[in-house]
Amino acid sequence: MTPDWVKDAVFYQIFPDRFYIGQGPAGQPAPVQSAFEAWEAPPTLRGFKGGNLWGVIEKLDYIKQQGFNALYFCPIFASTANHRYHTSDYFQVDPILGGNEALRCLVEEAHRRDMRVVLDGVFNHCGRAHFAFQHIMENEAASPYLDWFHIYKFPLNAYSKHPNYAAWWNNPELPKFNTANPECREYLLSVAEYWLQYGIDGWRLDVPNEIDDDDFWREFRRRVKARNPEAYIVGEIWDDASRWLQGDQFDAVMNYPLGRAILGFVGADALDKDLAAKSGLGRLESLGAMACHHRLEDLFRRYDWEIVTAQMNIMTSHDTPRIFSILRGQTERVRLAFAMLFTLPGAPTVYYGDEIGMAGGHDPDNRRGMIWDESRWHKSIQQIIQQMSALRRSLPALRRGRYQYLYAQDGHLAFARTLEQSSVVVTINASPEPWRVNIPLHGVWPRGGQAVDLLSGKSGRCAG
Amino acid sequence: MTPDWVKDAVFYQIFPDRFYIGQGPAGQPAPVQSAFEAWEAPPTLRGFKGGNLWGVIEKLDYIKQQGFNALYFCPIFASTANHRYHTSDYFQVDPILGGNEALRCLVEEAHRRDMRVVLDGVFNHCGRAHFAFQHIMENEAASPYLDWFHIYKFPLNAYSKHPNYAAWWNNPELPKFNTANPECREYLLSVAEYWLQYGIDGWRLDVPNEIDDDDFWREFRRRVKARNPEAYIVGEIWDDASRWLQGDQFDAVMNYPLGRAILGFVGADALDKDLAAKSGLGRLESLGAMACHHRLEDLFRRYDWEIVTAQMNIMTSHDTPRIFSILRGQTERVRLAFAMLFTLPGAPTVYYGDEIGMAGGHDPDNRRGMIWDESRWHKSIQQIIQQMSALRRSLPALRRGRYQYLYAQDGHLAFARTLEQSSVVVTINASPEPWRVNIPLHGVWPRGGQAVDLLSGKSGRCAG
Repeated sequence: MTPDWVKDAVFYQIFPDRFYIGQGPAGQPAPVQSAFEAWEAPPTLRGFKGGNLWGVIEKLDYIKQQGFNALYFCPIFASTANHRYHTSDYFQVDPILGGNEALRCLVEEAHRRDMRVVLDGVFNHCGRAHFAFQHIMENEAASPYLDWFHIYKFPLNAYSKHPNYAAWWNNPELPKFNTANPECREYLLSVAEYWLQYGIDGWRLDVPNEIDDDDFWREFRRRVKARNPEAYIVGEIWDDASRWLQGDQFDAVMNYPLGRAILGFVGADALDKDLAAKSGLGRLESLGAMACHHRLEDLFRRYDWEIVTAQMNIMTSHDTPRIFSILRGQTERVRLAFAMLFTLPGAPTVYYGDEIGMAGGHDPDNRRGMIWDESRWHKSIQQIIQQMSALRRSLPALRRGRYQYLYAQDGHLAFARTLEQSSVVVTINASPEPWRVNIPLHGVWPRGGQAVDLLSGKSGRCAG
Repeated sequence: MTPDWVKDAVFYQIFPDRFYIGQGPAGQPAPVQSAFEAWEAPPTLRGFKGGNLWGVIEKLDYIKQQGFNALYFCPIFASTANHRYHTSDYFQVDPILGGNEALRCLVEEAHRRDMRVVLDGVFNHCGRAHFAFQHIMENEAASPYLDWFHIYKFPLNAYSKHPNYAAWWNNPELPKFNTANPECREYLLSVAEYWLQYGIDGWRLDVPNEIDDDDFWREFRRRVKARNPEAYIVGEIWDDASRWLQGDQFDAVMNYPLGRAILGFVGADALDKDLAAKSGLGRLESLGAMACHHRLEDLFRRYDWEIVTAQMNIMTSHDTPRIFSILRGQTERVRLAFAMLFTLPGAPTVYYGDEIGMAGGHDPDNRRGMIWDESRWHKSIQQIIQQMSALRRSLPALRRGRYQYLYAQDGHLAFARTLEQSSVVVTINASPEPWRVNIPLHGVWPRGGQAVDLLSGKSGRCAG
């Protein structure tokens, strides 16, 4: 079984350094504001803008108003990188973010608003500033942590281009843990357990496929679920994830394939394929309705339905260009992509700023400071997200209903979401011209029944 | 005012990696025993033996039985060095030592036995593995921590011999903090406050003279005393400490000058001066009784009496060769030196293992694994410490009484400790021959009064 709450979740993904600078309590021993890069300046690979968790707390009401009830955070633990994937301390929330106290407060404030909090767990590798790795830097073979990594030779050349130890993508900044070492393994698993004590609702797992050890993830699951049976375990797997979705490892994965199908269909000729290709999205294909349907149906059949309705459905993230830029600023297409995302099984996930149509190219440009000047917001995008989220909230069939194919031709796709006696028909017109909908209903609605267009409120009648 | 409890304290100094390996609770994610250097093997500069705070807890009863009621620990925070002066995280007790939980338990168990706990505070510099320094290593000028250190140039060459940033004794392993930066200052002061929450009874300050800023230490004092007015603040100042002992900075200092006077007098011709000279003790001088007395009297007059009775009187430590070796294994002299230490104003301090006559030369040889095989103990040394500690406990004059000169000639020194109506006469014979004591009492005892030798129990009568 997957956590029930995820089936009702709408995720908002936050890149903490770039969301909002909150004040927090006085006397926090962190760097002062003047030490940070200007909020509006183009992001740099190494610069910090100083967003923090106090800022997220201040904006929780904003987030809720946009229709989100779950937060998925990029890493928040102490790190030497602005994206915080270079973990230096797994037991400390980064001081710049406000430290552990800020997380405790954030979880409390989120839960008070019926919002969930999922953290990013980076267990394959750490930053070279990590305590155990630095221990080996200093003590070499005399370090009792020697076996926590895969060391080939001394002295370690951690600050040159060619690491003499196993590192993620051979990047010396990211030494790979030896998860076969029992103490190292216990250390990582204790991190997973530790933060559950703070009340977090789940772990998004960074590159979990690189820990090529199903037993590791099985134990991870057992220990996480023992502390919180409703905790969500979602892996960053970009393609087929069957190996991890047998019920004994992850609850779900980041469903980029679904996102690619939506973008391919809705984006069609407008797609900036070169831009997308620089990221993990790979080269997007323009898809007709039938091709899109096939991809969706394949995804829905490949995994258990329990998993399908708990997938983290995602189009764009901190790892991809922004949807506004991929769709070349065509607001109508962005609106349609989000509308479609909210009608499919699985939890819709929106990257901060995408809801207001922020532009952003390849990393680090996709990590600009959130725009808080409302005059610069694309309010029509915001509105469709709010509207679709409200629809999803009011119609259980959109969250838990089966996916039923109705019609697919060129830029026209129609399907139903059916739960018990209730069916919602979804029609998507990805073509630039109006579509006078004329589709077979295959019995999802009774002949002569009245139909209401849920977006416009107009009504019609099902033909006999 | 200085803390009252220090005047009654007898300190035991512990080098945590070398004292005892306790088991602690199950499931601690720390390196396994097999990863450590053998306990009995000669210590190396970089090796770890795996002693921990759980081990200290197990041995608290032993320590108490030896006559100690206060513990002074070498650093215990997360570090890349076995001596832990290279701090990598000021908010974490080193995982190898048992982590924060072990300290919490230790303080509780110590207090239950009426024992105090003083920690070593290293605020002048950190280890190069420290989070903020590593942050600059990675992000250079883009790091908001840039001003927390004194950086001269990029890229930082932290792993070469010649650091391009301020470092303690130009040692690249130890970047010096910029305590003039308000956030860095606040960070360090918050560390001092943080651990007081764990119930610790004071801070021993490492090389505090190198933070050449009296206001820093004044604020340090204000904030520490605000949280615990009875907290002990004792600086590592090897020579004249008047600057810091005006009442607004430290309570006291590590009184090595007193230790040198005792060693010079008791050790006389037996001193291994070459050995001592390699350490901070410098070249010891053989002293006659009068020279020793002059040194002592100078120390007692130089500072306020409140301070004198709260000094941390120390002969040897992790920074010096062991007393057994300085006195070339002459057990009688070692016994006499300790006996004298316990009769002077100020808190006697004994380095772990010195109470059983462990040998040890220059660092790292002075940091051998504690000997727990009783058959190898020099029990006569242990006995004199127990006996003298008991005497000191039963005679308030030995703790708070004035120092009064009586007699000094060659190897013979006599003085009285006088508190209100009570006087204790101390006679010290540092010569190899018996001394038939014949000294003027200058009225400290009434004529014809009965005198009892507190060590032998024999009695005599004061001549008219």
